[in-house]
Amino acid sequence: MHRYEKRNLPVDKVRRFLEPGPIVLVSSKWKGATNIMTMGWHMVMGFEPSLIGCYIWEENHSFEMLRTSKECVINIPTEDIAAKVVGIGNSSGRDIDKFKKFRLTAAPGKKVKAPLIAECYANFECRLADSSLINRYSLFVWEVVKAHAASSPRYPRTIHYRGDGVFMLSDGNTSRYRRLFKSQNL
Amino acid sequence: MHRYEKRNLPVDKVRRFLEPGPIVLVSSKWKGATNIMTMGWHMVMGFEPSLIGCYIWEENHSFEMLRTSKECVINIPTEDIAAKVVGIGNSSGRDIDKFKKFRLTAAPGKKVKAPLIAECYANFECRLADSSLINRYSLFVWEVVKAHAASSPRYPRTIHYRGDGVFMLSDGNTSRYRRLFKSQNL
Repeated sequence: MHRYEKRNLPVDKVRRFLEPGPIVLVSSKWKGATNIMTMGWHMVMGFEPSLIGCYIWEENHSFEMLRTSKECVINIPTEDIAAKVVGIGNSSGRDIDKFKKFRLTAAPGKKVKAPLIAECYANFECRLADSSLINRYSLFVWEVVKAHAASSPRYPRTIHYRGDGVFMLSDGNTSRYRRLFKSQNL
Repeated sequence: MHRYEKRNLPVDKVRRFLEPGPIVLVSSKWKGATNIMTMGWHMVMGFEPSLIGCYIWEENHSFEMLRTSKECVINIPTEDIAAKVVGIGNSSGRDIDKFKKFRLTAAPGKKVKAPLIAECYANFECRLADSSLINRYSLFVWEVVKAHAASSPRYPRTIHYRGDGVFMLSDGNTSRYRRLFKSQNL
């Protein structure tokens, strides 16, 4: 299993990895216990501050840990750990220690206590920016306060969930259309 | 340019096409004028009702048309029209008729007045379900009230924006991990 070498990524650049819509792993820590959940419903909501909206169902064990600790790390897994991503989604942190069960490495964050998953391509440390939409929409609005990403490979082979057990794989990237963009729209 | 043959898609199944995170085209109609915008910041927010959150910047010409008409169509383009998707994002409906300029076909909806884009793989007719987050977050919460999707090809070659003029292409889909899912999680 690969542990990516990572560098600092400016927080306003996390869209590079989130806007294409991959499944992500959300890690949390509360009262000494850690947890991980698999999550597909998220969106970029701003650059400055760098805001990410995440739908987190109240039945998830992570829900209360995230709401109470007001912190998380959004981790971007790649295809090599797809089976673990599914396993994490199948199981509950009520019953197991997911870092141990799935042999993932909890690395310390710089700004939050929630752990980074070392085997993921990128890790975005987040603080809860707005809790007011949780009750109505299960919507957590996070601010990315520190971001780390590998630089090799340049484009990670991310996995994108369709439902029904089918993943779309990121299998190609192109700058072919770049010349068509107005520069202010890049 | 391809015009897809489409069938009815149950509205709770639109995640198949939105959750993987493609760039979409949002079409609108107000006072006889139509418009199209390119949009990458969206998320699934529920199955029943079928809710989609979309970030729509107030500077976009579509913003007032959408807020006032309370309707839109979310269209899923494929790679064959990627250059048009970029062109639509580069230009404003204040200056041009985008259906005409980009030679796209406005097809009538079943439940909304906003037009479907015939050259897109799927079209989701939406009504505004919640306008209360528009001022704070530019967040439109839409309910999909009617959905149409092609059945061939089974998996469309969608385009996913990374910023900086780079698109990730959907180039592979796999059911390889399906057997790992708990059935209730599919």
